[in-house]
Amino acid sequence: MYFASDNAGPAHPSILAAMTEANQGYAMPYGNDEIMDQVRDRLRDIFEAPEAAVYLVATGTAANALALATLCAPYQTVFCSPDAHIQNDECNAPEFYIGAGKLTLVGTGDKITPDALTAAMGDSPRISVHSAQPGPLSITQATEKGRVYSVAEIAALTDIAAAAGQKTHMDGARFANALVAQNCTPAEMTWRAGVDALSFGGTKNGCVGVEAVVIFDPEKAWEFELRRKRGAHLFSKHRYLSAQMLAYLEGDLWQDMARAANANMARLATGLRALPGAHLLQDPQANLTFAALPRAAHRRLQDAGAKYYLFGALDGDPDETVEARFVCDWSLPETEIDRFLDIAAG
Amino acid sequence: MYFASDNAGPAHPSILAAMTEANQGYAMPYGNDEIMDQVRDRLRDIFEAPEAAVYLVATGTAANALALATLCAPYQTVFCSPDAHIQNDECNAPEFYIGAGKLTLVGTGDKITPDALTAAMGDSPRISVHSAQPGPLSITQATEKGRVYSVAEIAALTDIAAAAGQKTHMDGARFANALVAQNCTPAEMTWRAGVDALSFGGTKNGCVGVEAVVIFDPEKAWEFELRRKRGAHLFSKHRYLSAQMLAYLEGDLWQDMARAANANMARLATGLRALPGAHLLQDPQANLTFAALPRAAHRRLQDAGAKYYLFGALDGDPDETVEARFVCDWSLPETEIDRFLDIAAG
Amino acid sequence: MYFASDNAGPAHPSILAAMTEANQGYAMPYGNDEIMDQVRDRLRDIFEAPEAAVYLVATGTAANALALATLCAPYQTVFCSPDAHIQNDECNAPEFYIGAGKLTLVGTGDKITPDALTAAMGDSPRISVHSAQPGPLSITQATEKGRVYSVAEIAALTDIAAAAGQKTHMDGARFANALVAQNCTPAEMTWRAGVDALSFGGTKNGCVGVEAVVIFDPEKAWEFELRRKRGAHLFSKHRYLSAQMLAYLEGDLWQDMARAANANMARLATGLRALPGAHLLQDPQANLTFAALPRAAHRRLQDAGAKYYLFGALDGDPDETVEARFVCDWSLPETEIDRFLDIAAG
Amino acid sequence: MYFASDNAGPAHPSILAAMTEANQGYAMPYGNDEIMDQVRDRLRDIFEAPEAAVYLVATGTAANALALATLCAPYQTVFCSPDAHIQNDECNAPEFYIGAGKLTLVGTGDKITPDALTAAMGDSPRISVHSAQPGPLSITQATEKGRVYSVAEIAALTDIAAAAGQKTHMDGARFANALVAQNCTPAEMTWRAGVDALSFGGTKNGCVGVEAVVIFDPEKAWEFELRRKRGAHLFSKHRYLSAQMLAYLEGDLWQDMARAANANMARLATGLRALPGAHLLQDPQANLTFAALPRAAHRRLQDAGAKYYLFGALDGDPDETVEARFVCDWSLPETEIDRFLDIAAG
Repeated sequence: MYFASDNAGPAHPSILAAMTEANQGYAMPYGNDEIMDQVRDRLRDIFEAPEAAVYLVATGTAANALALATLCAPYQTVFCSPDAHIQNDECNAPEFYIGAGKLTLVGTGDKITPDALTAAMGDSPRISVHSAQPGPLSITQATEKGRVYSVAEIAALTDIAAAAGQKTHMDGARFANALVAQNCTPAEMTWRAGVDALSFGGTKNGCVGVEAVVIFDPEKAWEFELRRKRGAHLFSKHRYLSAQMLAYLEGDLWQDMARAANANMARLATGLRALPGAHLLQDPQANLTFAALPRAAHRRLQDAGAKYYLFGALDGDPDETVEARFVCDWSLPETEIDRFLDIAAG
Repeated sequence: MYFASDNAGPAHPSILAAMTEANQGYAMPYGNDEIMDQVRDRLRDIFEAPEAAVYLVATGTAANALALATLCAPYQTVFCSPDAHIQNDECNAPEFYIGAGKLTLVGTGDKITPDALTAAMGDSPRISVHSAQPGPLSITQATEKGRVYSVAEIAALTDIAAAAGQKTHMDGARFANALVAQNCTPAEMTWRAGVDALSFGGTKNGCVGVEAVVIFDPEKAWEFELRRKRGAHLFSKHRYLSAQMLAYLEGDLWQDMARAANANMARLATGLRALPGAHLLQDPQANLTFAALPRAAHRRLQDAGAKYYLFGALDGDPDETVEARFVCDWSLPETEIDRFLDIAAG
Repeated sequence: MYFASDNAGPAHPSILAAMTEANQGYAMPYGNDEIMDQVRDRLRDIFEAPEAAVYLVATGTAANALALATLCAPYQTVFCSPDAHIQNDECNAPEFYIGAGKLTLVGTGDKITPDALTAAMGDSPRISVHSAQPGPLSITQATEKGRVYSVAEIAALTDIAAAAGQKTHMDGARFANALVAQNCTPAEMTWRAGVDALSFGGTKNGCVGVEAVVIFDPEKAWEFELRRKRGAHLFSKHRYLSAQMLAYLEGDLWQDMARAANANMARLATGLRALPGAHLLQDPQANLTFAALPRAAHRRLQDAGAKYYLFGALDGDPDETVEARFVCDWSLPETEIDRFLDIAAG
Repeated sequence: MYFASDNAGPAHPSILAAMTEANQGYAMPYGNDEIMDQVRDRLRDIFEAPEAAVYLVATGTAANALALATLCAPYQTVFCSPDAHIQNDECNAPEFYIGAGKLTLVGTGDKITPDALTAAMGDSPRISVHSAQPGPLSITQATEKGRVYSVAEIAALTDIAAAAGQKTHMDGARFANALVAQNCTPAEMTWRAGVDALSFGGTKNGCVGVEAVVIFDPEKAWEFELRRKRGAHLFSKHRYLSAQMLAYLEGDLWQDMARAANANMARLATGLRALPGAHLLQDPQANLTFAALPRAAHRRLQDAGAKYYLFGALDGDPDETVEARFVCDWSLPETEIDRFLDIAAG
C-alpha cells in the first residue's frame, strides 16, 4: 500500500532489460552512442519537431534547472506557481543553475491563471534596473496537485509570456500522466501551445532514472550541452540513459504506464469519495491527489503500514479529518488499492 | 581494439544483474533505501572509517565538484596539477560548485611534487585580501597520465597542505587501479595518509554510472547532502545507484576488475616497448599510458579500426613518431591487445 | 519640491569638507587609513560594542548583500518582507552575493509580524533536503513604508529567529531616521535586541556615498573582508569613505540630519492630513510615507514640477485619489513643503 | 618618499572641487544626473566613438569584473597574462561576476605575445564540451610591470582573438599613463586596434574613486547596467562619480597627471640606473617599475621611511640585491625622488 510517491516504485522490467541488452562491448561515451541517435529521432517524431534539440539527464531537477538556465539570465526572475517543484523541492537548484536568479510566485495554488500571470509578469521584458527583470514562465504539467492544464490553458499562458518577450518552460515530470488524461498530442500540449523547452519525465513513470530535455528552438543547443557538462550531468556511459529512454518510448510504453497510474488513481479516488467522512481536495486528473480522511481511518491505515504523506497529527478527535497526499504509480496492484480502501473504511 | 577510454566499455554483468534484482517493489527514495545502508557499512569497513560520511552520485565530475565545494570557499583557490581532470575536463564544474572559486596549477605534469606544492600554497591560510586565498589540495590517484602516488608521496603532500591549514581531496576516478598497483590498504592510501575527502570511482571501472564520495571527517555531511540536492545529483530512485555500488564492492569485484585492466595495460606496454621505433612516455602503473609510435604503425592501426587518442597528424614521415594515449578497461580481451600489437608491428 | 527620494538631495557640506580635508598627501589604501581607525572606534562607541567588526562600502545594496552573504549559505533562504528593498530594489544582488540563495517573503506589507515569521521560518535550522533550508531574518529599519519597529518588536522577531538557529540582519539604510523616531540607543535597537549584522546607512541621510556594515559578532570579520574584495567593493583610496563617515558621526550630525528629515515629513504629513480628499496610507514615523491624493491635486503638483512617485494614471475622475510615495531628506526647505501643500490644496 | 602605489596619493584638488560644486540641490540619482550626460559626451568625443556605451563605477576591480562578465559566459575562460591584476589582485572577482568562469594564463610575464596567445586560445570558439570554452582576451595597458603595448602589438593580439571568435577587454587602470607614453590617440589604442571594452582608470591617476567602462559595441549596454546594479555598483548619488570624471577629463587633466607621474618615474629610473650595484628589471614606460637594489641601499631607505614593495629579506649580504617595485603618482614632488636617490646612494 505505497502511495507516498511515484519515485519509489520499480522500473518497468523492459527498461532494465534494455539496459542489460545495451551492456555489450564498447560504445561511444558522452551522448555519442548509437542508441541516443534513435532516442533523438523517436522524440522528434513523437513531438513532430524534426529540429528539436534532445538531451538526456538522470534527474528531474537537473532537467528543470538546466532548461531554465538556458532561458533565464542571472538578473531575471522565473515566474512559477507557489506549489511549483522548482520552488519547493529543488533546494535552490534553479537559482544555482541560472547563476543566482530569482523565482517569482504567481497567484496561489498549483495552476497559474492568465490574470495572475499578467499581473506578475507585466508586458515588457525591461523594467527598472533596480528590480529583477522579468524572465521565463515555468508551468508544471501535470501539476504538483495532480491537475492538468488544457491545451487552451497552456496557450493562454504562453501567449502572455510571449507578449512580454518571455519563453515558457514546462516541467513535465508527469508529462505522460497529463497527456493521457486529455485528448491531444505531445506537440499540441507543447510547442504548438507555445512551450519552448520541456522537461520530459521518465523517472517517476517507470524508468530507473532518466529525463529528456526537449528544446524546440535548437538555438540554445550548444549552450545546453555546455551547461549540462558544467553541471556534471553529462554521463560518460551515456548508453544506459539512452537505453532506458528508448525502451520507455518503445511501443508507447510510456503512455501505457501513465494510463495504468492514472487508472489506479481513479480507482482510489472513487473509493475515497465513497468513504464516510472523507473528501477529495480536488478531482484527480492524473496520478496524484490530496484528500481529507478522518483520523480514525488514517490510524488504521498507518497501523497497517500504508505509506503516504500526512499533513497533520494523528492524535485528536478520530472523526476530524486530516489531509494527506496520495500518489499512484504504474506498478501498484489494484488489490492494494482495494485493501487500502477496505482498511480505510474500517 | 578499443583503447580510447575506460568509460566506453561495458559494465560488469553482475552490476546489471544487481540493478535488475533491486527492481522489485517499492523502496525508499533519495538515499534512504536499504541497499544504501549496506553500501555505507561496506565502504566504512573497506576504509576502516566507521564514522565516514558516504554518498553516491552518478558522475565523476559530480563527485569531484561536490567534494571540493565542501572544502573550498568561493574566495579560495584549489591547488591541482596542470593535467588534472578538474582543470581540463570538467568545463568549469569545480568553479561552479565552489561558487566561483579558482584553480591554481601546481608545477608541471600530472604528479604534484612537495616542492612545487610548497611554492604554490605557501604556509598560511590567510594571505593578502587582494588575492584568492589558499584552499584545498586536490590530487588524482591514479593520475591522468596513468601514474600512481605512493602512500609516502601522498602523505608528504597532505602534510604540506595541513601545515598551511588546508584539506586534501583525492580524485579517485581510478582509485581501484591505483590501489591494486601498490601494496597498501584503502585506509593507508587515503585518510591515514591525510586525505580528507575521496571521489571513489566506479564508472570507469566496470559500473554503469556510480561514484562514491567518502568524507572522512563527517562534519560536512549535511552540507554535502544539501549541495548534492542543490546540484540536482540526488537520485530519487537511488536504489539503482546503491545496487551498482554494492555489487561493485561484493567479493572485491572492484579490485578484480582493476587488476584485469592494469594487467591489460601491462601486456600492452610490454608489447609497445618491444615495438620497433616506439617508446612509452612513462611506465604505466595503472591502466593507461602515453606512448609514441611511428606514423606507419598508427596508420595501420587506424585503418584496422583501433580506437585511441592521437596527438598529431598522420600525414608525414612514416618513421617519425606521433604520441598517443592508450587506456585499457577490465573487459578488454587479451586477444584484442595481441591483435593490436600485431598490426602495430606491421 | 523634491519628494522622490532621499538619495537625490545634496550631501551635508561638512561631509564634502571632510573629504577635501582628507585630501592631503599619502594615506594607506584599502581601509588601512588612519581615519578608518577613528571611524571604527567611534562606531564601536556609539553601539557600545567594543568588539564589533566595522567596514565601509559605498552603496546600501553592497552593505546588505555582503552582510547577508556572511549569514546565509547558498542552500538557504533569507526571510524578509514582501516590501523589502533586498527583494524589490536590488536586482538579485542578495541572491548573487549569497551564491544563488533564495528570499522567502514573510506575511504582507513592510513590517514582519512574529506570527508570520514563525509560520514561515519554523523552529528548526534543518528541514527536508529537498527544500531551501531556513536562513537569516532580514528586517528593514525604518521600513520601506516609513514605519519603525520598536525595540520590543525587533526583539520578538530576533527571538524567533534565534530559536530557529538563525541570525538577524537589519537593513538600516534609514537607521538614523528610525533611531531618532524613538527613545532608545543604537545598542538597544540592534545587538541588545538580537540583531547580528547591521547595514548602517549614510548615503540617504546626507552623505556622498558611504554605508557601514557593523557585525556584532566579529567571527565573520575576515570572511566579510574577502567577500567585500571579491565583490569589488574594497576602495583603494578608502580614506574618502572614512572621511565621510567620520564627519557624519561627528557631533551627532547623523542624528541631526535624520531629525530634520523626519520633521520635514511630519510637516508634510500634517498638511496632507488636512488636505481635502486626501489621506495618509499610514502614519509616517520616519521620513517617508504613502498617501492618496485626489487626481486634481496631483495634476497641479505635477504641473508645478513636484517630484514624487505616483502609482496610477492622472487621467480620470479628478476627485478620485491616486496613491503616491513621498520622501523628505534633511535638506528640504520648509518653504518647499509649504509650497507643495499650497499647490495641492489648489 | 611614497613609491608603494599610485592609489595612496591624494586626488587632484580640482576633482574634489568639482564634487563640492556638484553638491547643490537635488539631482536625478542612479546615473541619470546631468553631469553624467556631459561625461558620456566627453568620453565619446575623446574616443571618437559616438555610439559607445559609457558607465561609471567606483573601483577598478568592478570595472574589470563587470566588463568581463558581459564578454564571457560562465562556461568559458578569459585569457590573460600570469601577472594580470584580474588574476592576482581581485580575489576571484572576475570569476564571481562571470558566474564561475575561469582564467587561463597565457605565456609568462606581463605582456602577452601573439605566439603565446595563439597557442593558448586556438582558433575556434568551440572546443570539446569537456573543457572550459575559449572566451575573451584581457590585456592590461599599461601592464602590471609598467610596460606598454604598442598599437601594433594590441592589434596583433585582438586579431588573434577575433579570428578565434573572441572579444578583447583592456584593463586600463593606468590607461592614461600608457597613452601619454606613446604617440597615439585613445581611439587608436582601443577600438581601432580591436578592443571591445575598456576599463578606463581614474582612481590611480588622481581621482577619488571612479572608473569608466567604455563598451564600444553598445549591444551589451543594458546587460551591463543590470550587472552593475546586481553587483551593487550603481551609485544612487551618482553625480559625485560624474563630477569626478568630468573634472578628470576637463582640459586634459587626466593626461597632464599621467605625464607628471610618468616623468616622476623617468626621473627615478635615471637615478636608479646610476645607482652603484642597482639595476632596473625593465625600462619603465609608464609610472612604475621593478628594480634590484643592494640590501644596504634598501636598509637606508627603509630606515628613512621610504615606502615601496620589497620582494626579499633585508638581513643578509648588504651588497646583494633585493628586488622591489616602485610606483610614482602624479603628486610626488621631485624633491622626494631626489631625496630617495640620495639616501639610496648612501
